[in-house]
Parts: sequence; structure tokens; C-alpha cells
Amino acid sequence: MLVVMKKKVIEKKIQAVINAIEKKGCAARLLPAGDRVSIGILHHNGLVKPADFLGLDGVKEVILVAKPYKLVSREFQPENTHIKIGDAVFGNGSFPVIAGPCAVENENQVLSIAKSVKNAGAKIFRGGAFKPRTSPYSFQGLGKRGLILLAKVREETGLPIVTEVMDVETFDIVERYADIVQIGTRNMQNFSLLKRAGTSDKPILLKRGMSATLIEWLMAAEYIMEKGNTKIILCERGVRTFVRHSRNTLDLSVVPAAKKLSHLPIIIDPSHAAGERDQVLCLAYAAAALGADGAMIEVHNHPEEALSDGAQSLYPDQFFTAMKTMKAIHAIIEKK
Amino acid sequence: MLVVMKKKVIEKKIQAVINAIEKKGCAARLLPAGDRVSIGILHHNGLVKPADFLGLDGVKEVILVAKPYKLVSREFQPENTHIKIGDAVFGNGSFPVIAGPCAVENENQVLSIAKSVKNAGAKIFRGGAFKPRTSPYSFQGLGKRGLILLAKVREETGLPIVTEVMDVETFDIVERYADIVQIGTRNMQNFSLLKRAGTSDKPILLKRGMSATLIEWLMAAEYIMEKGNTKIILCERGVRTFVRHSRNTLDLSVVPAAKKLSHLPIIIDPSHAAGERDQVLCLAYAAAALGADGAMIEVHNHPEEALSDGAQSLYPDQFFTAMKTMKAIHAIIEKK
Amino acid sequence: MLVVMKKKVIEKKIQAVINAIEKKGCAARLLPAGDRVSIGILHHNGLVKPADFLGLDGVKEVILVAKPYKLVSREFQPENTHIKIGDAVFGNGSFPVIAGPCAVENENQVLSIAKSVKNAGAKIFRGGAFKPRTSPYSFQGLGKRGLILLAKVREETGLPIVTEVMDVETFDIVERYADIVQIGTRNMQNFSLLKRAGTSDKPILLKRGMSATLIEWLMAAEYIMEKGNTKIILCERGVRTFVRHSRNTLDLSVVPAAKKLSHLPIIIDPSHAAGERDQVLCLAYAAAALGADGAMIEVHNHPEEALSDGAQSLYPDQFFTAMKTMKAIHAIIEKK
Amino acid sequence: MLVVMKKKVIEKKIQAVINAIEKKGCAARLLPAGDRVSIGILHHNGLVKPADFLGLDGVKEVILVAKPYKLVSREFQPENTHIKIGDAVFGNGSFPVIAGPCAVENENQVLSIAKSVKNAGAKIFRGGAFKPRTSPYSFQGLGKRGLILLAKVREETGLPIVTEVMDVETFDIVERYADIVQIGTRNMQNFSLLKRAGTSDKPILLKRGMSATLIEWLMAAEYIMEKGNTKIILCERGVRTFVRHSRNTLDLSVVPAAKKLSHLPIIIDPSHAAGERDQVLCLAYAAAALGADGAMIEVHNHPEEALSDGAQSLYPDQFFTAMKTMKAIHAIIEKK
Repeated sequence: MLVVMKKKVIEKKIQAVINAIEKKGCAARLLPAGDRVSIGILHHNGLVKPADFLGLDGVKEVILVAKPYKLVSREFQPENTHIKIGDAVFGNGSFPVIAGPCAVENENQVLSIAKSVKNAGAKIFRGGAFKPRTSPYSFQGLGKRGLILLAKVREETGLPIVTEVMDVETFDIVERYADIVQIGTRNMQNFSLLKRAGTSDKPILLKRGMSATLIEWLMAAEYIMEKGNTKIILCERGVRTFVRHSRNTLDLSVVPAAKKLSHLPIIIDPSHAAGERDQVLCLAYAAAALGADGAMIEVHNHPEEALSDGAQSLYPDQFFTAMKTMKAIHAIIEKK
Repeated sequence: MLVVMKKKVIEKKIQAVINAIEKKGCAARLLPAGDRVSIGILHHNGLVKPADFLGLDGVKEVILVAKPYKLVSREFQPENTHIKIGDAVFGNGSFPVIAGPCAVENENQVLSIAKSVKNAGAKIFRGGAFKPRTSPYSFQGLGKRGLILLAKVREETGLPIVTEVMDVETFDIVERYADIVQIGTRNMQNFSLLKRAGTSDKPILLKRGMSATLIEWLMAAEYIMEKGNTKIILCERGVRTFVRHSRNTLDLSVVPAAKKLSHLPIIIDPSHAAGERDQVLCLAYAAAALGADGAMIEVHNHPEEALSDGAQSLYPDQFFTAMKTMKAIHAIIEKK
Repeated sequence: MLVVMKKKVIEKKIQAVINAIEKKGCAARLLPAGDRVSIGILHHNGLVKPADFLGLDGVKEVILVAKPYKLVSREFQPENTHIKIGDAVFGNGSFPVIAGPCAVENENQVLSIAKSVKNAGAKIFRGGAFKPRTSPYSFQGLGKRGLILLAKVREETGLPIVTEVMDVETFDIVERYADIVQIGTRNMQNFSLLKRAGTSDKPILLKRGMSATLIEWLMAAEYIMEKGNTKIILCERGVRTFVRHSRNTLDLSVVPAAKKLSHLPIIIDPSHAAGERDQVLCLAYAAAALGADGAMIEVHNHPEEALSDGAQSLYPDQFFTAMKTMKAIHAIIEKK
Repeated sequence: MLVVMKKKVIEKKIQAVINAIEKKGCAARLLPAGDRVSIGILHHNGLVKPADFLGLDGVKEVILVAKPYKLVSREFQPENTHIKIGDAVFGNGSFPVIAGPCAVENENQVLSIAKSVKNAGAKIFRGGAFKPRTSPYSFQGLGKRGLILLAKVREETGLPIVTEVMDVETFDIVERYADIVQIGTRNMQNFSLLKRAGTSDKPILLKRGMSATLIEWLMAAEYIMEKGNTKIILCERGVRTFVRHSRNTLDLSVVPAAKKLSHLPIIIDPSHAAGERDQVLCLAYAAAALGADGAMIEVHNHPEEALSDGAQSLYPDQFFTAMKTMKAIHAIIEKK
């Protein structure tokens, strides 16, 4: 349920509504939007009805939210959420690109790649320090040492950093180093991790689970937002299907579908979807044409020697050309 | 197996190789390419070996084809197949668009839509006369009367016509009226229908089966080509997955993957993939950006009254704008 | 809509209701059940309402059928359909087993296998004469010669024959030789073939499409039944999923789900689902335990030399043991 | 790589081999089996070769393990793993059944259900205290209070307890109360949680991920085993497919497929697969017939009032009958 206050209502009246909500045993959540404020009612379990609040001073209307997700819905917030990190804004119609290697391997590697991708126009650098790997015998990432190298990249290039967090135990340290904290596809319904992300002041990049429905994905975002963190970037990275010519099947329809239901920005990761360089380029152009809020692309200076996901990493030269093409495509979409 | 002849070899030597192949109990298939000719050996069942033909006069080399599909493969024909119909060419790097309603309903409807889509830049008109419907109680199409209306559209607008054939019984009549004969998703492995299509002199638009792998799809095209018809346009229309926010999941990765394995042109049908107007537009732009060889889009003058698939049909105005955007995106991709 | 007549109502009253239905421009379909008759109203397109028939003499009640399928639904016919072929009855709680090779190869092969499976307790013999194959270069079956061999098997062993029909062109001849006509998974939505099957007086074994929903499957059966053939046996043979350890994923839940919605018998084909001998045995036992109306199992005297599907064919000895186990399991389920 | 020692070799020789392995920078893992011992070599990264150990005293042979999983493979341990908890043994050919409600709700509920299921023959009690829920607004379980109630059930009925752990933070407390610790489908690739489970001395019930391949599932078990915990019970609970008549699609083929590759016991959870009571019963019988190592079934004294998953919970009476049927079916399979 959503209590919409009249325009420019004073603080005291807002507080009175909050008190009324809490007296009913529910949680209140302030949702400012321009010169008007709304108050979401959470955990109400059918205990309250619109009439309980309609008579209160300063209340304009009470909206029943039909969806299982609330805070992430367009009903709660009709305007797009804008998330600004460094030079990049996600959600305002621009198309910022995140780029970098799958895993941080060494200083030379990350600095070299970071300079290339910055030069090509990337706004944010990506690189894994804690790596979720199917096999316990595969390279598991450099851990804290990787985070330090990422910080060095930021220092030298000015690029903000996105890196994955795998558990609550290492959240503090990842959060300290990262500008955006990524939650990976295998952890999309790791609810303890989502709750911890909800208490962070860093933006969260929430990848879609391998076989998550759109509703489940939005509910995962709702877990984060319910704890107070409103800076969430959704990231589609392909879903698991019967198809065998690509690693996953990129589900581009989810972009317009998510934008219809939610105010959160949504970007595309063509690298993990495709699993193969040639397909990555095609899907990146498709992402730009589609109206996504950005893309995240794997780039490696020596893909053939990469410790993980080499086959899907672009060469720096390819990425340079790809950025020009994506930019040109996006310009057309933007003008539309 | 593929016998590659030397350049500009005379007809008599070619015939000698064909005779040698047939004497071994196999079928020979002539594959001209520029100033060189190759001869495919079909149905050999391991009975022949390269040495059987390497010594023959005029033979340059013998290539073993490792794939289960042969005639449709890049190994057999490295150059893209170009298929020209009216003003449109599929496979030469251009992006011709096929448009029209799901079903032919009446003369006024098809003429009105045809003029709109021609005006917007569509090169070919689509419309179903024989409709495959999940329910026996749904509108099954106008049949022959629909074909006659389509012919009238061609007469009045000059647009070539594509329409679906559902069985061998009606192939003759559909073939007589259509410029391109469509085989639908449910018939992709109707092998009797594929064989009949193989004896047609009309180009075949072969839609991907709802859960067909790329290999199965290429094998279906191989059925057609094995009977002699080399004019096949593949059409991706979405595959069946667990996803529920769209009717099907458009598998864009299949475009670069198919182009790597086969010389056949491949186009995208965003309408059946999406099942919803807003998604259709997004996917159409993605198709243009991806490097597909064209698109097929449903347009209706009164979508809300359409006898089938109204929700996924664009309004003529939307289509007009979409064409401009697709054209601009394709121009960027073309220059690349 | 379903008009339920009173018990033991005379023929003339029934005919009067049929006339009333047809005068409204709809089709009437007689549905006898014990000492009562119902009349289904098809193709009504919302033109008629219960009140149109409620007043007529002999009419007990009028039921609105909410489902898109009608004739196949439990609403139209609450009792199980029983289909008797030779010694076997499908749908009466027994568990008849169909067995035989994937393809008819030669007289010795089919006779040898038929004697084995009969000896083990199989009630019906299966064997493909017209084979739908992914590749045009694979063995396509013996055609009419195969049908003649199947007839010989019937003559010598007394076992009824089930064999697949691939198109309308060969329906007449298949129908002439077969006791049950099989429509394969790739043709489940070959609507022309379904309509032809609807005019046959032979029972139809309708396999589920590779990615068909239950509703689509029932609608395919409805196509057959709408043309007048009520003898339909559904056959689950696995669906296409992301899974890679088996050829298809056998969907056992579809058995109770189909039985809830429809009165048609439903059997299991574990051989095509599994694609591997060991799994076939396990799934066959599961089918017996589940309450399915029978099973269809591939058996070959020399699986390692089979022209198709050798890896999933049981050895005669394995089948003999499997039959004993299935019979014992079914006895427990029956008693329940 | 696996170093197989000769029979009855003395401890000192074993230690010498371990030293040799560790000197090469690899990890050694002792694998006792009857009167023979093998030593697995982990993390070798291609640094060692069989010849490095073949000459050592007491070594019988060195086996290269081709699979990405090692400790869980049949190559490392050909015999079935047996896991004994209370009266139940998983993996020895018996069919122990775990039963109980989805969530612990209150003392009366769990005691009442526990007595019913024990009376019906269940060997272990299940009940969720920490509940992973799609929505942050759904009932999240009683937490520690739920664990205490489960302990009370054990005290009063003697039934061992299985309950789910959701994160590393609460692992200690869950481990303290539970006899078997369950890792749920959404956490199958929560690698931090798997590693923690690997240091536990309690058996782990590892549910298959919603769209996990068999290999990914075995690799998840490998994560646990690599840390030292060898007591792992796999649990198939249905996978996500396009199917809509059941909550998930139970993949029974995975049972024989897993048993071929791994020595770990594997049980079936028909309740979460089906999502609907009638289907649960059918799938439970199928599980017993299939040769699974047990089943886990949801039972509730008042399903219609259950705080979660009521529709798929059996009534106590249904469960009682179902147990008798499963037992009878299993007896047939056992004798086979």
C-alpha cells in the first residue's frame, strides 16, 4: 500500500502518517519524488486498509499495490531511478559501458586493460577478485590482493570499479574497495547476501539468476531495497535453455518488460550470454539498439592466456571498434 | 564429400566426375561458385574415399565434410547465398523488411496495410491464408480466397508476397500465388513438406522450430536443398523457454552462429517472439543492429480487431517510425 | 457448451435438440455415456446461450465448458475412455505394454523380436516403416515393404501393430496395415495430418511434441476428435530441456495432470526420453508405479547393429525381466 | 589422479606416498575402501605424472581421473557411500523416507505431524526454521525458535531432524540442532556455504539447483567433499522448464545418471517438484520404483492452513497410505 502525500506537505504531517502506520504494526518507508512524498507500507499482511490513512492530514490518496514487489515497482515510483557513479549515469537514457577482464590476474594486466578500455570510452572498470567457479580446483581469484589492484586501477585511471561479492563474510572488504558491488547470477537468491547488500551505501549490480523469472529477479531487488539501499542496477546475462550454440540465451525481451514494471535501470552483459567473441559483438550492438541502460563487456589484453573466460573476452582493438559502433547506434535510439 | 574442380574446367571433365560418383552408387550435386565448380557427393554412406576421385582429370582437391549437413554448409559454399525477390535481396548485407498482418481477413484490410507498409519502406508483403492454429475452433484462415486477395495486393502495390503453406496437399496452389513460400515453426520437421518444398522453384522461408537446435534447423534446410531448391531463407522467431514475460525467447545468438556454419541468409521475426507490441519494437532494432539479413514484422491497420495475434501487431504509424530507426541502425552496421 | 439429456430419453428428443443446435449455425456432437446422452455444441463462437436449450424436452442441464479443448475434456466425458486393441485395453486401469524395434529392418529381425516380446508379455508390436529422421542422409525406413513385414508379424504372432504415419499422402496405406496409427512428436501440430487422423477408424497414438504444453497437446487431440475419431491414446516421450545427461526429460507429472483434465488414456515411452538403456529400465518402472495406462518400449535383438536408436533399445532378456518387474509394480498400484 | 595402494599395506608406506605428493606441492586425500587404501591427489594442475608415484613402495597403480569432479566420482570410490542417521541408511539399497512440514510453525503442529509420520514409517523428520522465500514480505521461518522446536520433536519421537541452512552466519547453530543439514536449491552454487558445509561433521542434504546440470551438481558436492565432509546426500527436486502444469519438472533420469558417475546416495523430493498433492503421490511411487535411495515428502496436519507450500503437502492419512505403497514397490525393486 502506498500513501501519497499532497505536494509540499510539511514534515510534521508526514511524520504523523508514519506514526499511524507504525502504530498498526507495519513498517513505513519514505519515498521522495520531486516536490511530493509518498510513504510505502510494508509488511502489512492485510492488517490495514486505505481508509485507515485516507482521512489523515496532508494525505492525497492511498494506492493499493497489486504486485508482490513494491518498492521496485513503477507504481511506487513512476520515474526512472538514476544512478550516478563517476562519469556514468545509469537510467537517464545514456548508455554507459563497463569493461574489463573476467578476473584480476596481476597489476600489469589490469592496468593495461584499464587504459585500453578507458581510451575506448568505457566509464567503469570491472574485474573479479573473488571468483565463483563451478570447480573447487579452478582459479578462485586473488581475493583481497585483487581488490588492492583494482584500487590501484582506479587511482591511476580515475575509473570507478565494479567487482563481485560472494558472501556476507567478505562483504565489508569488497564494499570498502568497490564503487559498485556485484551480486552474481548464482547468488541472485542468496537472501542473506541480498539483505546485507541492502544495508550498504554502495550501488548494487544485481545479475539475473540463470533461470530466474522476471518476477523473481525483481523480488531479489526488493530484498535489497527493503533494507534501505535504493541504488540497484539490474543486469541481464543470459538464461539457461536447451540451446547449445551459445553458453546462455540472452533474453533481450526482459529489458522492455522490466522497464514496464520497474523504475530500476537495466544493463546487458553480452559476454557471459554468448561465451564466444563473435557473438559478443553482435549482442553488444543489439543491446545498444534495444534501449538498455548500459552494457558490461569482458575485455582482455591476452584473451588466449586469460585465467578464465578467455574465449568470450574481446581484444582491446575489437572493443575500441565496438564502442564506436555502440555509440553510433545508441545515438539513433536516443534521438528517437 | 566435396570434389572441387580446377578453375574454368570444361564441361566434359565435370560430367566425367559425376559419372564416376554415380557409378559408385552415390548422388552427385553440382555446386557452381564463380569461375569454379564443385561437386557434392551425397548418400555415400562411407562407400567412397577421396582417392576415388583425386586422380580424375580436372579435379583440384577433395574435401571431407565433417558436418551432418552438407549442402547448406560453409564448407560446401563459402560465399553467402543471395536471394533476390522483387527489390529485396536477402544475404547481401542489406536489411529488407517483410511486413503485413498475421492473417488475411478481407480486401480492404490487406490493401490498406500493404499501402502503409510499402510507404514505410517494406519490400515484401506477408499475410496468412492457411493458418496453423492451436485450436480447431479458432479462425483457420481464408484459404484460397486469401491467396487471391494476396495476388491482388501484389497487383496493386507491386510488393511480392510471402504466405505460409501447411501441407503437401495445398503446396501447389500456395506456390502458384506466393513469391516466397513460408514453412512455419510447427512444420520445421515435417519432412514430407520439406521434400516437397525442395522441388519448388519458389524461395522458401523456413522458420525455426519452437525448440529446434541450430543443427536440427540446418538439417531441415538440408532436406529442402537435397531435393534441389537452393533458395532458402532462415527465420528466427523465438524459442520456448521457462520465461513468462514474452511469448517466446528470441535467440539472437543464433544469427552469428548460423552465419558461421551456413551460407544461407537468416532473418528475424520479432513479432512472434515478443507477443507484445512494445517488445516487438525493441527486438526489431536489436535485429537491425545484430547483422541479420532482414526482418519480418506484423502490422495491422486495426490491431485491436485483428482475427489473430492483434497484441503483437504494430500500428502503421509505429511501423513507419520503426522502419526509419531500423534503417538508420542498419546503415551504421553496414559501414562497419 | 454441453447439453446433458435426461436418462433414457428417446431418440426423437435427442434429434430435436440437435436440430435446434444446428439451426443456430453450430455443430452438434453426440456423446453417449451409459444410459444417458450428452450433446456437445461446437463452433458456437458465443452465438448461443444455455437458455436456448434449457427449455427443450428431455434436457436435464446445460454445462458451460470453460476449457479451450472440449471433446477431450473430463467436463464433456467424466468416465475414462477405454480403447481395446487385441488383448490390450488402454484406459481401464491395466498396463498394456507395446514393444518392438525403432525401425523395421528385415523379416528375420521383426519376427525374432516379436516372438521375444510376445513371450515376455507385450500385447502390441511396434516398428517404424516410415521414419522421420533429422538428416536426409539417414536411413528413412523401408516404407511399404516395412508395412508388409509388420503384417507378417501380426499374422505369425497375433500381435496387433502400431506404426508411425508421417504425412497425409501415406495415411491410407499406413491405416490399412496398422492396428494403431502413431503420430510422432514432430507432427503433433501438423494440423492437416491430425484432421486426416480424425477421419480414420483406427486408434491414434498421439505423441507429445518436444516442447508442447499439456494444453497444446490436448488441443492436438481435440483436432482429431473434432473430426470424429474418439480413439486417441496420448503418449509422453520426454520434453526438451537444458538437461544433458538424457536425450529428453521425461515429464511424469503430465500423467496425473492429463488424467485430471481429460478422459483419454495416456502411456509412457521411456526409450525416447532416456536415449540410454539403463535409464530406460528405471523410467519404465517409474511409469508402472505412476499409474500410467501403459508403456511403449524399444527392444532389439541386436541393439548394437540397429539401424536407428540402438543405444536406447533393450536386449530381449532385459525386456523379459523388465516386464516381470513392471507387472509386479503395477499389481501394487492397481490394488491401491 | 588416484594412487591405489596394495592391499593391507602398512601405515608408514601410505605416509611416504602422502609426503611425496605434498612435496610436489599438491594436496593428498586419504580414501579408505575395505582392506585397501587409495590416495587422491588434488590441486595438481598438471604438475605431477603417474610415474612420480608408480615406483613408490606399496603402490599398486596410479589412475588418471578424467572427470572434473574427483572425490565424488566412481573412479575414486567404486562402492556406494552409505550414510547412516538414526535408523535410516542412505545408499545401501533401502528406501528411507524423510517427512514433515515445509515450515516449523508451532510446537503443536510439529509434534502432531511428527507422530503421524513416524507412525507411518518415516525415519527422519523435516521442517524449515530458516526459510528462503522469494518475497521479503513472506513468512521467513521461526529461526532459532524453530530449531528448538525441532529438537523437541527429536526428543519426544526419537526421529532425527533435517533442516535447511541459509548462510554461513547461521551454520553453527543449525549444525548444532540438526542431524542432517540441508542446502537448498537456490544455494547449490553458494560456494562459501558449500565450503563451510565441508568442515561440518553432520551429513549434508544437497538439493539440486533449479537449472543445474548433473556435472554442476556433482561439482557442488565436490566443493563440500574437498573440505573433508564425505557425508553428502544428493536430492533431486525438479528442474525449471517451459512446463506449466507442475511447479517444476522432476528429472528422474538424473538418478541412474548420477549413480553411474558418483558413489553418493541420491533421493527424490516429489513435493517441490509437483507443487500439487495428487502429483506428489504419483511421483513418490515413481521414485520408489526408480531405485532412488529415499524420498523427502511434505506432510502437514492442516495443509489448507499451512504458512507455506500447503497445496503440495500431503494429509497424514494420505501419507500413511503412500508409505505402504512405496514400501511395497520398493520391495519389488529390491528383490530384482
